[in-house]
Amino acid sequence: MRGTIIYAPGDIRSEELPDPTLTAGTDAIIRTVATCVCGSDLWPYRGIEPVEAPQSMGHEYVGIVEEVGNQVTSITPGQFVVGSFATSDNTCPNCRNGYHSACVDGEFLTTCQAEYIRIPHADGTLVATDGHPDPSQIPSLLAVSDVMGTGWYAAIAAEVRAGSTVVVVGDGAVGLCGVIAARELGAERIIAMSRHTDRQKLATTFGATDIVTERGDDGVARIHDITNGIGADSVLECVGTRESVTQALRAARPGGNVGLVGIPQAVQLSGEELVSSHTGLRGGPAPVRRFLPDLIDRVLHERIDPGQVFDLTVPLADVSEGYRAMDERRAIKTLLQP
Amino acid sequence: MRGTIIYAPGDIRSEELPDPTLTAGTDAIIRTVATCVCGSDLWPYRGIEPVEAPQSMGHEYVGIVEEVGNQVTSITPGQFVVGSFATSDNTCPNCRNGYHSACVDGEFLTTCQAEYIRIPHADGTLVATDGHPDPSQIPSLLAVSDVMGTGWYAAIAAEVRAGSTVVVVGDGAVGLCGVIAARELGAERIIAMSRHTDRQKLATTFGATDIVTERGDDGVARIHDITNGIGADSVLECVGTRESVTQALRAARPGGNVGLVGIPQAVQLSGEELVSSHTGLRGGPAPVRRFLPDLIDRVLHERIDPGQVFDLTVPLADVSEGYRAMDERRAIKTLLQP
Repeated sequence: MRGTIIYAPGDIRSEELPDPTLTAGTDAIIRTVATCVCGSDLWPYRGIEPVEAPQSMGHEYVGIVEEVGNQVTSITPGQFVVGSFATSDNTCPNCRNGYHSACVDGEFLTTCQAEYIRIPHADGTLVATDGHPDPSQIPSLLAVSDVMGTGWYAAIAAEVRAGSTVVVVGDGAVGLCGVIAARELGAERIIAMSRHTDRQKLATTFGATDIVTERGDDGVARIHDITNGIGADSVLECVGTRESVTQALRAARPGGNVGLVGIPQAVQLSGEELVSSHTGLRGGPAPVRRFLPDLIDRVLHERIDPGQVFDLTVPLADVSEGYRAMDERRAIKTLLQP
Repeated sequence: MRGTIIYAPGDIRSEELPDPTLTAGTDAIIRTVATCVCGSDLWPYRGIEPVEAPQSMGHEYVGIVEEVGNQVTSITPGQFVVGSFATSDNTCPNCRNGYHSACVDGEFLTTCQAEYIRIPHADGTLVATDGHPDPSQIPSLLAVSDVMGTGWYAAIAAEVRAGSTVVVVGDGAVGLCGVIAARELGAERIIAMSRHTDRQKLATTFGATDIVTERGDDGVARIHDITNGIGADSVLECVGTRESVTQALRAARPGGNVGLVGIPQAVQLSGEELVSSHTGLRGGPAPVRRFLPDLIDRVLHERIDPGQVFDLTVPLADVSEGYRAMDERRAIKTLLQP
């Protein structure tokens, strides 16, 4: 089958790889209907994360079940399925607590930019739709498998409620999906921090009520202007740099909440600033599986359309162009078509 | 009147000072019935915090109202009152959000180890009891003004719920009051981390079900043993060192919560560890005023008896002995009797 391997920063290739096979009774093999390139895939591509050996790439997917192991009971061949980038048994204490991305039996998938994918713990990881969705809904269902699920978690972690004032730091696909989540959760004011016209437009389409183009201290000052000097109830931090995390903390009001889903690379936070801010903080790799049934339902009932974050679609064979377009900011997010 | 001034680390003196006077229409003057020495008072005493000039000390108090300014409407002379170490107008957005210790008009009191105290924003800061309490209840009402209110906030910030497994890091007065709070909020298991026999005993009296004497990695390993490898639902961090904060984060389960009321002195937290832990974090100077009516009620109805943390009482004039006893760990907490 066709799969994707990164060899070095900037060197990503579409290659013929062996088809995956069942390795445990709880596995499923799915035929990929759509996959995509994640912002985090750009870290090794840009050399921010080392590439020590050639490695397979991709962790977002929707597909049709081809084959299941003999212990799989709820997932059956022929079903259309959406899964999270993190596998989960859906039965361990962490899963029962809603933190499927900390499943004691879980792992993070890394082979999904491919024609076929082996999914461990298929019963706990995959959610099947009733029948096959309309092709127009595929991009949104694909978004649900990571960026929409992550944006949703950011809003949940930041405790967005009806009437909240929400700031979204980061205008990548996750931040844009965070705007959708804030709107769905009833936020009254949604302030998107963005300097890119195309992303500002999409943020507004998704429900942003204000756009702030300033960053850092100036950005924080603008948020304080807008919120009568108090700060926002909820801040969704969807970048993960020291600057963006600091900006997020300072934009929140005392007693407000920051959802941290930008994965900080070696960021140190001042305990003193954190504590004196009275701000609640929660983050981490999103437990997308917790939200899948609800988010799939919202997509199928056309309440949300996060698939709009895909502004470029290329054949899976052209994966290198998909990465390049995102790296050069010509695309927000690239959908790969097997 | 008699008051307390620190001149240098280790040099704390009881002195004759001018009586405080009303400086704003919203002030009250109270005659102190009891005050005490806080763990945080030991920072300048121990030289951990610089003493750049002689400064007055003390921020915990109960008293009788002597005089009120012409804008004070709800507090009247003769009332017995309990107040927070942080003054608050109780009307600004931060107060309305429950974060009185971030009141836009607030300040932190520093003159309370004295016979009389000026209380700004008396209406918003003080809570009067119905009639005068029994003398036996004074220590517990005094505890409510800081350590019990702070222990309570730690438990609220750590989202302790009925049935929770709770770890309390720190066996000072705040940690011990955190045990009381966890019990009152319905925790099923309360694990106190303590190495001092007298404090272990008090923790058990207050409701601790388990005592863990190990610290650091060993302490975390014991918590994981006790919680089937998952970690605790809630951790109350009542120390504020890098070690204790790290220990608290690692003792919490994925999706658990840490209440951070030990005020970290220049502690840097790893954003990566924080985020990957999925742990919720909230802390800061406790908004004690939010909890005062409820906590006073629990004391007066003898549901809680946090006054037991005072294991030494000295006359206000002997304040230096009060500090010394706490510094040398001969006392958990010293009550000062004017």
